[in-house]
Amino acid sequence: MKRTQAVALGEAPADLVIAGGRVFLPETGEFRALDVAVCDNEIAALPESAEDVIGEDTRVVDADGRAVLPGFIDAHTHVDTVQTLENAYHYALEGGTTTVVTETSGLGGAFGAEGVEALLAATSYLPITVKATVPPQPLADTFEEPRADEDEAEALADLLADDRIVGVGETDWIHAVGRDSPIERLYERAEREGKRSCGHGAGCDGAKLSAFAGVVDNDHEAITADGVVERVERGVHAIGRYGSIRDDIEAIAGAVDRVGAAELSLSTDGMWPRKLLDEGLMDAVVRRTIEEGVDPADAIRMATLNPARHFGLDDRGSLAPGNAADVLIVDDLQSVNVTTVISGGEVVVHNNEVRVAPRSHEYPERFYDAVDVRTDPDAVRVPADAAGADGRVRAIQLGEGLLSHEATVEPAQEDGELRAAPERDVAKVALLDRHPDSDGSGFAGFLTGYGIERGGVATSMTMEATGVLAVGADDADLRAAARHVNELGGGWAVVRDGDVIAELPYRVGGCAADLEVEETAKLLDAAENAVRSLGVGVERPLVSLASLPFVGVPTMKLTTSGYADVVRRELVGLDPD
Amino acid sequence: MKRTQAVALGEAPADLVIAGGRVFLPETGEFRALDVAVCDNEIAALPESAEDVIGEDTRVVDADGRAVLPGFIDAHTHVDTVQTLENAYHYALEGGTTTVVTETSGLGGAFGAEGVEALLAATSYLPITVKATVPPQPLADTFEEPRADEDEAEALADLLADDRIVGVGETDWIHAVGRDSPIERLYERAEREGKRSCGHGAGCDGAKLSAFAGVVDNDHEAITADGVVERVERGVHAIGRYGSIRDDIEAIAGAVDRVGAAELSLSTDGMWPRKLLDEGLMDAVVRRTIEEGVDPADAIRMATLNPARHFGLDDRGSLAPGNAADVLIVDDLQSVNVTTVISGGEVVVHNNEVRVAPRSHEYPERFYDAVDVRTDPDAVRVPADAAGADGRVRAIQLGEGLLSHEATVEPAQEDGELRAAPERDVAKVALLDRHPDSDGSGFAGFLTGYGIERGGVATSMTMEATGVLAVGADDADLRAAARHVNELGGGWAVVRDGDVIAELPYRVGGCAADLEVEETAKLLDAAENAVRSLGVGVERPLVSLASLPFVGVPTMKLTTSGYADVVRRELVGLDPD
Repeated sequence: MKRTQAVALGEAPADLVIAGGRVFLPETGEFRALDVAVCDNEIAALPESAEDVIGEDTRVVDADGRAVLPGFIDAHTHVDTVQTLENAYHYALEGGTTTVVTETSGLGGAFGAEGVEALLAATSYLPITVKATVPPQPLADTFEEPRADEDEAEALADLLADDRIVGVGETDWIHAVGRDSPIERLYERAEREGKRSCGHGAGCDGAKLSAFAGVVDNDHEAITADGVVERVERGVHAIGRYGSIRDDIEAIAGAVDRVGAAELSLSTDGMWPRKLLDEGLMDAVVRRTIEEGVDPADAIRMATLNPARHFGLDDRGSLAPGNAADVLIVDDLQSVNVTTVISGGEVVVHNNEVRVAPRSHEYPERFYDAVDVRTDPDAVRVPADAAGADGRVRAIQLGEGLLSHEATVEPAQEDGELRAAPERDVAKVALLDRHPDSDGSGFAGFLTGYGIERGGVATSMTMEATGVLAVGADDADLRAAARHVNELGGGWAVVRDGDVIAELPYRVGGCAADLEVEETAKLLDAAENAVRSLGVGVERPLVSLASLPFVGVPTMKLTTSGYADVVRRELVGLDPD
Repeated sequence: MKRTQAVALGEAPADLVIAGGRVFLPETGEFRALDVAVCDNEIAALPESAEDVIGEDTRVVDADGRAVLPGFIDAHTHVDTVQTLENAYHYALEGGTTTVVTETSGLGGAFGAEGVEALLAATSYLPITVKATVPPQPLADTFEEPRADEDEAEALADLLADDRIVGVGETDWIHAVGRDSPIERLYERAEREGKRSCGHGAGCDGAKLSAFAGVVDNDHEAITADGVVERVERGVHAIGRYGSIRDDIEAIAGAVDRVGAAELSLSTDGMWPRKLLDEGLMDAVVRRTIEEGVDPADAIRMATLNPARHFGLDDRGSLAPGNAADVLIVDDLQSVNVTTVISGGEVVVHNNEVRVAPRSHEYPERFYDAVDVRTDPDAVRVPADAAGADGRVRAIQLGEGLLSHEATVEPAQEDGELRAAPERDVAKVALLDRHPDSDGSGFAGFLTGYGIERGGVATSMTMEATGVLAVGADDADLRAAARHVNELGGGWAVVRDGDVIAELPYRVGGCAADLEVEETAKLLDAAENAVRSLGVGVERPLVSLASLPFVGVPTMKLTTSGYADVVRRELVGLDPD
């Protein structure tokens, strides 16, 4: 007989017992005075008293009347960007996040199926469960030719058969609504495999949202309560978000009574190192949700059972017998102070003391030193005749959050070239292709609203694109920053007067730092401060740059071939006429 | 662009529009004034007005303010017994049941994987969606050797990869709790395939239910509200039942406020022809549930979205864009009078007029004339020395419902044999093996509480067993009845004084009648009346016999090798000492 059953029947000792807690049952929303009996890495049973199954070798953890919860699940995140998970997972566990559902647009965008496999290989041995999606980006053809050839597309589709893959990653609705897309082969394969297709429906509503709902199964881009309701009504699982990108918890809180707590999940959509250190991961999201007035039982359900069910993670999301032994003890449901964490039956955090440490992982060799964009003068040169008759060119005007819009600006003219004119807040901006198959060239245009007065900034952190984004008050510092990102093998570089004044290496595929979280946080802070020292006054100077290539939000973005007019779904050039 | 999307965007005409109804959105529980636009066999959108997509060739169905619902899903039934679905599906559709999740213990029990395939082949072309489970019975070893050899077991496991298979069929808890079972290979395969394992937990509670919950994902055997709650708390999806076997709706109604409507589903567990004709299928279940005080929105959700989600039927359960166009128009939510039914985009019932008709299907040749049990005197002979010193033997005492218990009786002794003693309500009962691989012999014992005074009854309808059950007030009529069941190729035979006084052929595999439903109902009624004419006074004389081999309910049952002591899980013989 399976040992777990013997424990459930009271006939064999458990390996671990969490005794004396108020166990949360997400299906009914109740907290009940029950013990938790664990055998190997599974929940065996939730007896009223586990006394019968406490043997000589049974470890007993006293919950002492505190709440006992299933491990939190992050329904949407990005563990392949900014910071590698193997260096950060212990902070995830510290706050009770035992499972993450992650995008792979960083490594997957750069290295295709090999990138996804590398992420799985790097994380599968960690005491946190990683489920991933397959990136649709390599198949997108809305503005440029798809990255993926036939073999690569098939390799990505084949990944959908893997147990660790829960579906297709977030597709910006503009790729999928009202047009044919090569991504459809991924949706079809996902459907056959019983997997999910994830949406990114920022700004998508009405008839467009209905059309999108026929393609995707979930969306984390509702920023109002009405937007949440509109999604749920169309059969789209709505995922709330609190993290480094946005705080949309008000939308979730305003919708929960209208749609019921069973229909919603919670996520971070990425939590950068400083915020991770300061606030936590899903514990921060649950805390924020409760603070917004959502009943704790509902908030916890949205961070446990609901995402598990939505993504078909049949062995988690509640402490039901047979589920993975991912168990939290929480001090109180206002602070959501997670004191003890059991992940897969292993006590990884006990009385706030973390028992696991960062690990290192060796990625395939070609993932290191993987950034090599052009930094010669021609790579970012804009000839004077690119401007209209009045000397003005099309530019990107930074907006709020991740938004950016079309504008016209008047660059400086010098030696038959168009250059930044910082005195008029006109910066040069370039997106240079860093995909391994490319020659490293790209497109150079102009940016206003950033406020850079001197120097240059470059980064390989380019949301959903595989490039190096460089911006500068002059070409030389812009190129110097991009060159330094090449040298770092990816990351951030801030340059003033030819000197690198801040840097952060994203050594892993040009996507993520393999430093300790504290170090990454420090270097990111330093980079942000350095950028501010160049005169930049926007609220989030790094995020604003990283999102410039992100066509998932309106209205004008940057590609390696020109500006992307997101609404009209076409590339446009510098000439505004 | 996919045509469905063009319709959603209002850019192409729909094939079908259901206009002017109050559309039920199960996720939110609301009824909303929306139209339904259908393209091919899918829901394209639920616009406030579909006027824009009504073209010359668009069929418009006027819902005229009535409720518009997703098609009903029967979460647990048996379409391979009593009556073939191809002769009955139009009655299912008439009441709005557009999807059934069915067991296959009849054909699958008799013919293994080939039987399951045959059922799928017979039903896959019907305008009703059939999802099936793989029968665990051929692997059960609790009382007798498993039917399935290694090849057959592997063939059954392989079926779990099929899109039409949703999991492992109901396992009686006594096979799976507190012991190892060869069925585990099916559970493990189901888990790998992301499929479900269905439970049959009649009488299972407390620690045993916890152990069972580690094995199965759902159970339809809760007969009290506490039983429902106890299942849901252990992560077991609770399926309510109203049909020919039992009415457990009171239990569901008593639990819905305690566990929430999202956690429960509804089923028939089989609806025999007379009840199907009189009451309907899932419409009857929903009606009964509303009558029991459950909010109509909750009752409908339990018959649509919940079973769809539980069984991973991602394309149905609500009228969300992209889902199958299974749509009902219902007059009012008390009578649940379904007036119009669209199944897969096809109008199959309109204004109560059924547009589809029974169909015939040719099964593999060996499925016909498939019953050939021994009917010679030796096959049912019980030697006098089987009795104890006091002339008494162990017997089965019929109880309430499907229950039956251990008793001792004093048979008649004649020519060195033990025979029925109808004057003391002692009948002879035999279960003869009708599996194609067997020699047709079995076990003969005694039955009390049935009240048969003369004649004999035999049937190949033996729940979860593959046998012919014969009972008689004398050996000759018992054998004559069994012989006639052989001749019919399965079914029911009632014999008095050597004459067949009622018969019903189950031509298909000995499991189901391929007659029209009205004819099957008439012959079943006649058989029941004929059995009563033999003096039988129990409430449901046919069900009582059919369930005698069913070890899923306590406490003493019949196998082809002896009595099954269900609680002790062992075979016992006639000698009571």
